[in-house]
Amino acid sequence: MKNFSIGVDLGGTNLRIAAVDEQGNLLEKVTLGTRLALGRDQVIHDMCEAIRGLAAKYRDRASLQGIGIGVAGIIDMRKGVLRESPNLPGWADYPVRAEIEKRLGTRVVLENDANCAALGEKWLGAGRAVDDMAMLTLGTGVGGGIVLGGRIWHGMTGMAGEFGHMTIEPDGIPCKCGSRGCLEQYASATAVMRMVREEIDAGVAPTLARAASSDPEFSAKSVYKLAIQGDGVAQHVFSLVGNALGIALATMVNGLNLPMYVIGGGVSGAWDAFSPTMFREVRERSMVYAATVPAQMGDSAQVESGVGTRTIITRALLGSDAGLYGAARVAMMGGGW
Amino acid sequence: MKNFSIGVDLGGTNLRIAAVDEQGNLLEKVTLGTRLALGRDQVIHDMCEAIRGLAAKYRDRASLQGIGIGVAGIIDMRKGVLRESPNLPGWADYPVRAEIEKRLGTRVVLENDANCAALGEKWLGAGRAVDDMAMLTLGTGVGGGIVLGGRIWHGMTGMAGEFGHMTIEPDGIPCKCGSRGCLEQYASATAVMRMVREEIDAGVAPTLARAASSDPEFSAKSVYKLAIQGDGVAQHVFSLVGNALGIALATMVNGLNLPMYVIGGGVSGAWDAFSPTMFREVRERSMVYAATVPAQMGDSAQVESGVGTRTIITRALLGSDAGLYGAARVAMMGGGW
Repeated sequence: MKNFSIGVDLGGTNLRIAAVDEQGNLLEKVTLGTRLALGRDQVIHDMCEAIRGLAAKYRDRASLQGIGIGVAGIIDMRKGVLRESPNLPGWADYPVRAEIEKRLGTRVVLENDANCAALGEKWLGAGRAVDDMAMLTLGTGVGGGIVLGGRIWHGMTGMAGEFGHMTIEPDGIPCKCGSRGCLEQYASATAVMRMVREEIDAGVAPTLARAASSDPEFSAKSVYKLAIQGDGVAQHVFSLVGNALGIALATMVNGLNLPMYVIGGGVSGAWDAFSPTMFREVRERSMVYAATVPAQMGDSAQVESGVGTRTIITRALLGSDAGLYGAARVAMMGGGW
Repeated sequence: MKNFSIGVDLGGTNLRIAAVDEQGNLLEKVTLGTRLALGRDQVIHDMCEAIRGLAAKYRDRASLQGIGIGVAGIIDMRKGVLRESPNLPGWADYPVRAEIEKRLGTRVVLENDANCAALGEKWLGAGRAVDDMAMLTLGTGVGGGIVLGGRIWHGMTGMAGEFGHMTIEPDGIPCKCGSRGCLEQYASATAVMRMVREEIDAGVAPTLARAASSDPEFSAKSVYKLAIQGDGVAQHVFSLVGNALGIALATMVNGLNLPMYVIGGGVSGAWDAFSPTMFREVRERSMVYAATVPAQMGDSAQVESGVGTRTIITRALLGSDAGLYGAARVAMMGGGW
């Protein structure tokens, strides 16, 4: 009999649950709204109902190995407690793991969502050919994860991989983490919109101003579309994103010398707009990058022959499913803690 | 019969060779001048003679496990070749390992000196109680090393741990690595002297100016002495060192979540002058530090009971011998590659 596990992506807006077999095949995916307004118990109830449904459906052909739950925020891995989550106000110190194990009678692993995404990309995405990699997830904020020897590197208390809060500008934009000038303030969707707002307010971005006032869905993606259509201000904003990412990646490459760094999350869709600046900055700032990627080779990665000798910086492949696959994988691996 | 190994610290000025047993006891240490002016072969000859002498002396009571050589610069670990070394001009691409193995008929491991220092401190110094740690060595430049699971973390090509070239100021002081604003430009002995020179040139540092012109041995250590005697400008210079270290450590703590970070090298002697600013900056900038070291606990470390739950940032304990012990240890561990 085959094995399978259930991965959960518990976001502030969507609650996604997937049954995945041990080869990485998706058996079934369920997407629900996260009914936060109805309270914590309702969300846990909805999640458990969906998990029960999937488990019952596939239990007769495969054996359920466990449930992995990916969630944004700071998690106490040992206790399975959510210490603090930006998307789930009111869940602080809630014992998510114990509660769900009690309701379902199955082993549950609680894991940071960016760590899940890194493990998902390692398992089935951009990182398949390497054992060691780091990932940056550029979304509303910037998350990060490290995989060493095929497993999530948790560090001492499960908080490793917080690359979104690396200092990029010592006296830069204040961050809700308490610091200032964090990567998240320059490379997230929120940062793109802040920079656009500043350009509009300065009166130098007529095209962006028009789009912002006429398009109710105006977003970082809209800015990207204007950038590829040639709008100079939109291009400038993404060059600032690339600049910040380049500084962060140079520090990561110099410090860790990993074979691969994967960039995912919604903003990674703007790869064409930010990656030229990003690569230029990494090459200038990282002697380890320059020593492992000869200039004449060019930066854009995916050269399979280079795996293991050449530093590869590349786009994620699994889109928003990376975290869901990673959460399922975490449950298969026994949590890695 | 006991085992021992021989560690070598091959510096630009001094060549130090030590026989160390597997419990970490120093059997004997030899210090020679590095006779660079007489050429590479002479230096290798001097080193091999000293190693032969020590090996012959202790071989009848213990078994020689190998020779570890620590050297500054970028090393190709697989080939045992020194790719580039700031202290050893003219040694680029020289096959140090093969040459010494040929002459001595004993297994040789070539290792970066800052990695050796990190392993030395883990084995016998500040890091004895932890398996995972990182070290910054503040000397003429700033070196770094990572130890994971008790072994040096080399990364893909042996270049991991180059924390001296993390960007601290995106548009800061140019660095010989090709980047600008590197940690090394703010936290090395060279950086201290540059900052002092700038203060003197600006005409705002009469005491430092007097000391610099009257003391032929004027150095970062002299600046430290003036700082603890109350000289405001000297204190300011070390607060800038602390500031840069704090930014770097915050990024390391957020990214790696290790139980311990050790600060060594000559400039770490000025701990009292830079560490208050350093700790303040780490606490402000690292949410992982703040989550693992409650404010009321205070920062200064060495609380043995905190090992494994609390982020400890502390001074190195072995002084300039850390690299020598680490080089000996590298040989015992089979190189770790």
